[in-house]
Amino acid sequence: MEIEIITVGDEILTGHTVDTNAAFIAQQLTEAGFIVRHQSSVGDTVEQMEEEFRLAWKRSQIVIVTGGLGPTDDDLTKRAIVKLFKRNLVYHEEILEQIKERYRLRGIEMPAINQNQALLPQGGRFFPNKHGSAVGICIAEEGKIFIALPGVPMEMKQIMADEVMPYLRSLKTGHTLAIRKIRTTGIIESKIAEIVSAHLKLDFGVRLAYLPSLRGVDLRVMATGGTDAEALDKARAVERQLDEVCAKYIYGKDNETLEGVVGRLLADEQKWLSVAESCTGGLLGSTLTSVPGASAYFRGGVLAYANEVKTAQLGVSEKILTTHGAVSEQCAKAMAIGTRKLFDTDYALAVTGIAGPDGGTDDKPVGLVYIGLADRKTGFARKFQFGAGRDAIRLRAVYAAMELLRREILQIS
Amino acid sequence: MEIEIITVGDEILTGHTVDTNAAFIAQQLTEAGFIVRHQSSVGDTVEQMEEEFRLAWKRSQIVIVTGGLGPTDDDLTKRAIVKLFKRNLVYHEEILEQIKERYRLRGIEMPAINQNQALLPQGGRFFPNKHGSAVGICIAEEGKIFIALPGVPMEMKQIMADEVMPYLRSLKTGHTLAIRKIRTTGIIESKIAEIVSAHLKLDFGVRLAYLPSLRGVDLRVMATGGTDAEALDKARAVERQLDEVCAKYIYGKDNETLEGVVGRLLADEQKWLSVAESCTGGLLGSTLTSVPGASAYFRGGVLAYANEVKTAQLGVSEKILTTHGAVSEQCAKAMAIGTRKLFDTDYALAVTGIAGPDGGTDDKPVGLVYIGLADRKTGFARKFQFGAGRDAIRLRAVYAAMELLRREILQIS
Repeated sequence: MEIEIITVGDEILTGHTVDTNAAFIAQQLTEAGFIVRHQSSVGDTVEQMEEEFRLAWKRSQIVIVTGGLGPTDDDLTKRAIVKLFKRNLVYHEEILEQIKERYRLRGIEMPAINQNQALLPQGGRFFPNKHGSAVGICIAEEGKIFIALPGVPMEMKQIMADEVMPYLRSLKTGHTLAIRKIRTTGIIESKIAEIVSAHLKLDFGVRLAYLPSLRGVDLRVMATGGTDAEALDKARAVERQLDEVCAKYIYGKDNETLEGVVGRLLADEQKWLSVAESCTGGLLGSTLTSVPGASAYFRGGVLAYANEVKTAQLGVSEKILTTHGAVSEQCAKAMAIGTRKLFDTDYALAVTGIAGPDGGTDDKPVGLVYIGLADRKTGFARKFQFGAGRDAIRLRAVYAAMELLRREILQIS
Repeated sequence: MEIEIITVGDEILTGHTVDTNAAFIAQQLTEAGFIVRHQSSVGDTVEQMEEEFRLAWKRSQIVIVTGGLGPTDDDLTKRAIVKLFKRNLVYHEEILEQIKERYRLRGIEMPAINQNQALLPQGGRFFPNKHGSAVGICIAEEGKIFIALPGVPMEMKQIMADEVMPYLRSLKTGHTLAIRKIRTTGIIESKIAEIVSAHLKLDFGVRLAYLPSLRGVDLRVMATGGTDAEALDKARAVERQLDEVCAKYIYGKDNETLEGVVGRLLADEQKWLSVAESCTGGLLGSTLTSVPGASAYFRGGVLAYANEVKTAQLGVSEKILTTHGAVSEQCAKAMAIGTRKLFDTDYALAVTGIAGPDGGTDDKPVGLVYIGLADRKTGFARKFQFGAGRDAIRLRAVYAAMELLRREILQIS
């Protein structure tokens, strides 16, 4: 069954609101094995809505609309529905009773405007709304289904979860969709695509997408099948192949984060970590401590932005700074070793580099970053070249540092 | 001119990615006075894209597409464009040279797959991409414009801001909208709305919007007029009134950031800053050093996540920790004073609090944060209660700390 989602509201078209409703609905449907073919947003006019509803109703089996059902916005969604389906609005006593009851519980008299909320298109059924006065509307006709939900996220989510999903699941037949996400870092998109395409041949009904970001490249496997189990089997078969050919680069699956994975590795082994940051200025520490419970393995760090801090607090020798400079393998290594000692931790990570936009030279261009890693025995540093853009360079450095530690702990070379 | 936006990607239709690209593009266009009529998302198949592109091209004057321009084979946007416009792809040597140069800067050999990136539809122009290999594509035909941009947010944003917006603005006639943004922090939306509505009466053709975020509340003034000058006059008149009644809370205008403003104040007065961070774990330092040139006033800091670090490195007394605890006014003040001494700076900021989700008590609930500030003479700390949510609490603490310093430097009480 082809589904499409339409969100209504000027605030979406002006970009003042990010459309999280469409994403929520799409996720619920996708997880239940439905396939969302199309998503669109229209403004708050009856004409635009009617045109969009008509197009959707023509090409899709199921249409889900959110927004424009509140009592103050003049019921524009309902008016567009009435025009499309050529039906009258009829009054539902039981809906008004529920709304009155809700106001009674809050000790407020129901504003008269809410009476509109009890008017529904003839022949439609409604989905109760636990958190507000706008009920969901459902019209089934010619083997197709049209659903309209309020746009307030809390209300929409409750009706989707409690009413719409059970209803749609009860209708479902045919093929389903399974999704697996494999998360990699430390390799660029085109390179991992080369590796994958050299080893993998995808069956019919399986798609693979590369989703690059500054944090790494996610591989998303989408498989369709006659049953949930069949689809999942197909997706997992591809996942297993990817696990094998990309092993070194895979740090997690689905919603796992690199900071979460590194944190778990440290916590599992009861190891402590400290950091020294120059060009990242705290972004590495901030990312590591964004994980709840980080106090079990993160002891602290030094933001060694100025060179004096590198010498005075981390014990980097003047000689290293004058001979090799603050952005050098030697300095990164010395920073890591000094930090590890200062905080008496099992591991220390150190970052020093040129985030730009100024400060680059021919020898040491913007984007050059050294990352140092020390353990209780020794230390080393790696050189990276992270391209351009201050924010991008800093974020890439943070992920490269965490990945260096992950591979060190897991002994991946 | 009617504009529509199309985002391409299965990850949007499955709800795995919230479509922030569409919101960003819509916002840019709206602020420049364009009207976005329609927004939609389609999956990664050439057929779906072509169908959607064709529909959009028929009904709108300007179509902007993002996504599906990467080098891997799930990136099909170019193929759909070629089908729609019935053009061939032609090879652009200069694009390939730029891509090669970018790889050279990163010290990586360009994977052969990137050669695809130099192929563009015949007769189209391209917009350079500073952060990646997929250039923007622009086709002008029959008085209409079709633009395709990469889907990686950083790349899309750069091309939109640097290339697409100037190009579209150059085509525009009859500009009648002026926008001013006044940025406040340290006050909640309903409170600033109370102040404003008590003092301001808006003329016809002027709208005021409150845009709250974790960083503060922006006031957006939108004024329309027969000419640019008239619209701007109207907007500026409201801006001047707001400057007066909200003076204390206003840290900047338009795209100014609090970290940028604080940095400029420090640089202007040639003062040095250091930080000590417990619950924010580096987020304050990271935010301060996100500003290019921060090395002129930011010396460094200590991530004092564990209590041992607070005593050993910052000189917080054991007595303070046992009597008042690490999350206390006394500890925040001692951290600030200790940090200022350690780094020999003019100012030091210190943050200690309970970011949760665990660790809260009745006395010291999650969201309780103390922020300390020291100068060369003295030090003090303020208590804040930042509600729930680890990320939100940390971010609010960072902005409260920077605002505390801004008001200290400017002697605003």
